[in-house]
Amino acid sequence: MTAAGPGTVRPGGRTARVRDAVREATLAELAEHGYRGLTVEGVAARSGVHKTTVYRRWGNADGLIADALDRAAAEPWPVPDTGTLAGDLRDLARLVLHGFTDPAEGPVARAFVLAAAQSGDAARALHAFLARRNEQAAVLVERAARRGEVPPGTDAAEVVRIAVAPLYYRLFITGEPVDEAAADHAAAAACAAARSGALTRRPEPAS
Amino acid sequence: MTAAGPGTVRPGGRTARVRDAVREATLAELAEHGYRGLTVEGVAARSGVHKTTVYRRWGNADGLIADALDRAAAEPWPVPDTGTLAGDLRDLARLVLHGFTDPAEGPVARAFVLAAAQSGDAARALHAFLARRNEQAAVLVERAARRGEVPPGTDAAEVVRIAVAPLYYRLFITGEPVDEAAADHAAAAACAAARSGALTRRPEPAS
Repeated sequence: MTAAGPGTVRPGGRTARVRDAVREATLAELAEHGYRGLTVEGVAARSGVHKTTVYRRWGNADGLIADALDRAAAEPWPVPDTGTLAGDLRDLARLVLHGFTDPAEGPVARAFVLAAAQSGDAARALHAFLARRNEQAAVLVERAARRGEVPPGTDAAEVVRIAVAPLYYRLFITGEPVDEAAADHAAAAACAAARSGALTRRPEPAS
Repeated sequence: MTAAGPGTVRPGGRTARVRDAVREATLAELAEHGYRGLTVEGVAARSGVHKTTVYRRWGNADGLIADALDRAAAEPWPVPDTGTLAGDLRDLARLVLHGFTDPAEGPVARAFVLAAAQSGDAARALHAFLARRNEQAAVLVERAARRGEVPPGTDAAEVVRIAVAPLYYRLFITGEPVDEAAADHAAAAACAAARSGALTRRPEPAS
């Protein structure tokens, strides 16, 4: 085992196997115990990787979370393609909703956001993860623009933010429940605003 | 000095003066040092209240924050009244924006949200604070309904959430910058959605 960082040895080598084992164990520990229950010791025990190795490479629980987020950002994501902007945004908001409410994935997703509020490393990893996801989702709006559903110059990233922000706001700011009605309202708002021309890059005065 | 909790002695009495001094000191310490820099010792030193008193009544930094939020929730809030839903929502979103970007108030407001991510007491106080603010803001939508700007049955609380959520999403989730364009986009989205009938309590299918 060299002292090199994760990913510097060829895929499939021992470094990659260790990294995969640690990452899987991190996700499993987060799913079971949440952010506050994530420890290097727990991840070491579950992964079978020696805890001094985990400490050396990942530093602490926040380093484990940041690495898990970095890997998640590289994974494929099923961006909806229903044929209409309304349908695509509805399915996008529901996809985000289910990411937080799914019994298996939900605790991990919530732990990522809580970790980001408390750790600079986790925050940087979350910001990069969401930037990548929102960039992928922006294609929905670009397709809608090509179909003439929204005016030229519509700010695709802004449409996506508005379609998902109310779910994060309820979950992490006001502590209100989330459900499909909340997701559908947010999606409908983003769609109505995009169609109306209010989300072009140079916004109309709201008067 | 009795061992009774804050607020159990008549307003203007010594208990009230101590509480006001501690609360002012809490806000000033948060403005200067942020959530991570808030300590009982710092608040005691700044307020001139003995630190054993602060510990006994407020417990810890999170208790100080929760109490400051409880007091803030009772303060008057200048809900906009421009004569149109678009103008009211725009001014509402800008009011929230300025609460986070103002050099004096911003650090305190951010500290409240960060504290809520890390402390159950602070979270409960923030949820109650925002529920109160959003309830006050809902009057904008009720006025718009009386003017016929939005359909009967429009979910006022949902309109308000959509008008402010993207600011919280940028500040606390994605780490993206906030500015008046972001506030205006969010307000315009809430307005367009409300007018279109997409935010009635029984939502239309999003097609």
